Amino acid sequence: MGQALIGAIANDPAARLSGALEREGADAILRDAGEVAGLGANGVTVTADPDEAFDGADAILDFTAPAATRAFADMAAQKGIAHIIGTTGMSADDEAHVHLAAERTVIVKSGNMSMGVILLSVLVERAAAALEASDWDIEVLEMHHKHKVDAPSGTALLLGQAAATGRDIDLDQNSVRMRDGHTGPRAAGAIGFATLRGGSVVGDHSVIMAGPGERLVLSHHAEDRGIFARGAVKAAIWSRGQAPGLYSMRDVLGVS
Amino acid sequence: MGQALIGAIANDPAARLSGALEREGADAILRDAGEVAGLGANGVTVTADPDEAFDGADAILDFTAPAATRAFADMAAQKGIAHIIGTTGMSADDEAHVHLAAERTVIVKSGNMSMGVILLSVLVERAAAALEASDWDIEVLEMHHKHKVDAPSGTALLLGQAAATGRDIDLDQNSVRMRDGHTGPRAAGAIGFATLRGGSVVGDHSVIMAGPGERLVLSHHAEDRGIFARGAVKAAIWSRGQAPGLYSMRDVLGVS
Amino acid sequence: MGQALIGAIANDPAARLSGALEREGADAILRDAGEVAGLGANGVTVTADPDEAFDGADAILDFTAPAATRAFADMAAQKGIAHIIGTTGMSADDEAHVHLAAERTVIVKSGNMSMGVILLSVLVERAAAALEASDWDIEVLEMHHKHKVDAPSGTALLLGQAAATGRDIDLDQNSVRMRDGHTGPRAAGAIGFATLRGGSVVGDHSVIMAGPGERLVLSHHAEDRGIFARGAVKAAIWSRGQAPGLYSMRDVLGVS
Amino acid sequence: MGQALIGAIANDPAARLSGALEREGADAILRDAGEVAGLGANGVTVTADPDEAFDGADAILDFTAPAATRAFADMAAQKGIAHIIGTTGMSADDEAHVHLAAERTVIVKSGNMSMGVILLSVLVERAAAALEASDWDIEVLEMHHKHKVDAPSGTALLLGQAAATGRDIDLDQNSVRMRDGHTGPRAAGAIGFATLRGGSVVGDHSVIMAGPGERLVLSHHAEDRGIFARGAVKAAIWSRGQAPGLYSMRDVLGVS
Repeated sequence: MGQALIGAIANDPAARLSGALEREGADAILRDAGEVAGLGANGVTVTADPDEAFDGADAILDFTAPAATRAFADMAAQKGIAHIIGTTGMSADDEAHVHLAAERTVIVKSGNMSMGVILLSVLVERAAAALEASDWDIEVLEMHHKHKVDAPSGTALLLGQAAATGRDIDLDQNSVRMRDGHTGPRAAGAIGFATLRGGSVVGDHSVIMAGPGERLVLSHHAEDRGIFARGAVKAAIWSRGQAPGLYSMRDVLGVS
Repeated sequence: MGQALIGAIANDPAARLSGALEREGADAILRDAGEVAGLGANGVTVTADPDEAFDGADAILDFTAPAATRAFADMAAQKGIAHIIGTTGMSADDEAHVHLAAERTVIVKSGNMSMGVILLSVLVERAAAALEASDWDIEVLEMHHKHKVDAPSGTALLLGQAAATGRDIDLDQNSVRMRDGHTGPRAAGAIGFATLRGGSVVGDHSVIMAGPGERLVLSHHAEDRGIFARGAVKAAIWSRGQAPGLYSMRDVLGVS
Repeated sequence: MGQALIGAIANDPAARLSGALEREGADAILRDAGEVAGLGANGVTVTADPDEAFDGADAILDFTAPAATRAFADMAAQKGIAHIIGTTGMSADDEAHVHLAAERTVIVKSGNMSMGVILLSVLVERAAAALEASDWDIEVLEMHHKHKVDAPSGTALLLGQAAATGRDIDLDQNSVRMRDGHTGPRAAGAIGFATLRGGSVVGDHSVIMAGPGERLVLSHHAEDRGIFARGAVKAAIWSRGQAPGLYSMRDVLGVS
Repeated sequence: MGQALIGAIANDPAARLSGALEREGADAILRDAGEVAGLGANGVTVTADPDEAFDGADAILDFTAPAATRAFADMAAQKGIAHIIGTTGMSADDEAHVHLAAERTVIVKSGNMSMGVILLSVLVERAAAALEASDWDIEVLEMHHKHKVDAPSGTALLLGQAAATGRDIDLDQNSVRMRDGHTGPRAAGAIGFATLRGGSVVGDHSVIMAGPGERLVLSHHAEDRGIFARGAVKAAIWSRGQAPGLYSMRDVLGVS
């Protein structure tokens, strides 16, 4: 993901790479960040020291892990620089920590940073609100590469949540997350999830709304991981001049 | 379509069949409308006389041809009953005629009466407005059965129009309706159409929005023609108590 | 299904309806079979007596339940008429019973009678044999209407079996039939199943073969139940002049 | 494509890069081929001199242009090394030239080098042979990125040819390559093509076989261009020990 971020910054004329952070012991430490990304030298040396990496930055692009993200949120708040968070798997406690930091600086946080997925979630919410649950069944299907270790994907859950919000119901209480053997007929109002795994699929998601005699299918296909990096760069550029607070990608992209 | 309408009325507790009209010379004339529809006798005799068919009706469900639709619009206006128009292929002159009749009674007119397609058009308009034309290419794909004689389908054009409306551009001036041989690269901002024909496909439509590294695909699959009949019945029920005027299915379904 | 069978026979010039059987107490008993199917009277009266229904027939089209199918297999063998079996959910004991009857007459048995599904199973077997399991992951996805009470569908299992046969592995020992929570990475060689339920979907099946950087997707979409009836009629016509034995739809359709 | 080839060779333990050729004046000339590909130095210097590049090679991987491919075929034949040709747009005269060279060395030539597409073409041929043209309509759909300048794609034509071969008909005389306006009903036996363009799609192809009440859809999705490079490397490894001759990827992959 670091390489994708360096590439996305290089491709956006409004952005400039000011530092590159890797964990202690990584191969890339002390190498030129541009060369690590296969783009030719850019004069920024990869470091394991956050203070050095963040020095002079306007925003931190962070796709790390919950513990690091907590620490970076504090540093961002202290330095008054924006914090763009793509980290997943955060606990309620981690979330609370980020909320607190957002009182002092701009934080943008999303489980998926692609324009397409964020817009899809808006469309799903809209459609779920318009279609009567007694007549229309909602299913969320996702496919990812064979290395992915959890199911359903965070993005599938984000889309299921959008459907639940549109219907004004609680997702957890209305989810069907597996079907095998004698299941009985489908419960009206349920939101079903199905998971496919295989090959090198970056990420495909479909929300299927099946009514009497017709179906609406709203899908997103990610072709390369660069879309998440580009979304993070967009968020960083957008963050300039915003008041401190916790924002979502819907705010950045102006869709809701 | 007549059979589908009779079936849709029979299945909707809020609706009742009061008459059934067929063209002069049709086999069904003088037969019981319920038996024609394979539902068992319902006491309504199919007639070729519009006056007899419309007598006592609150609304006319009309999937005929432009000339008949003009005449029915006049009759509906005169009798003060609603006119639900699913007729396609109407000229500008036909449309003007219907507009005039709508000053005196409720008219609902749509090129596609299914809930799913109407909602899809709303979503497409929303998405097209959110996605920059310089980065996102829009394509409309449709498939219909082998007997269909025109291309693209009226519904494909309706969806293309929704995309054009979202982008605030003129559809005709930005459409690409065929590609063969040396086409050159795709023009930015164009809305492309592609058509598949085969078998007994009732109607599949997809609007593909292809951006850098990701795609959003918004699709509708019609499984049986009954959805158009059900939409017309919904429109008829909705028309009760509305002020005279020309309405669309977006009004009926409350989506916009 | 009875209506679909009557319709399929009426549409095939090589076939003629000689009897129509319903279970004791059904509404259709003593009615004209053509009228029951909404096709106009055809002079065949629906009966609850198998002897009467099978009298003069060349073949029995049977989409009933295991107990009835066992009894019909005996009657078909005794009368020397073909038995086309679309019944599902049969036990090993039921299967043995049918095998025995097949020593005396022609029996065609299949979990899915559509040309498209049978051909798909042949293609899946072929593809699975060609693609190395270490590089290519196979997933079977199916969607059916909300009333379906079991998962995965019999056809999904038939397709999974075709993949297993192509790979020369045991399906049961290599199936992954649910994924939820922390699943770990995908096991090489596994055949995964995923199930969607909703609306009025007749039956959609996809076999996805996901390799490094590419995917092959082989899909079947059933538009109406008539395809199963048409397949059964084809099997009946094919059965003429065949030697006694147990056949599959692959034999009927000449694909293998 | 050169970068993809260098990467594919580096990832295959049975292959080794012995030279790297670029056209005169290219930026990469005299640079290390591994560094150009973003993989770290590998000691092979990019050259504009074919003699130097091919020196010591067992096979040439060639995705260039017709004129260069003709010259390389002669060189390969003279040096007795294999020639793997992924070049497209070759004239009948170019093809004849390659045929002649193939009398003296092993040549593998294909319009698409991916395992998935080649296998798909085999399956399409098989399916087209099994399905009666009077009942089943065949359509070929493709989508590529917005920069592609011709339509339909070479791979779409390859798949259409596979369908035509399966049906034993001439593709050119049975192709429908555009539909717009009043087309009339679909001609039985026709093979239709439809083209989508947009975004950064590497290459999606579907062959749709639409029969009465059902559809079979056979699709391939290319996720990255690396699959074509990997196919070429496989062909080079396979070429060892083969007798001189002109081979296709079906020979390499052992599918037919």
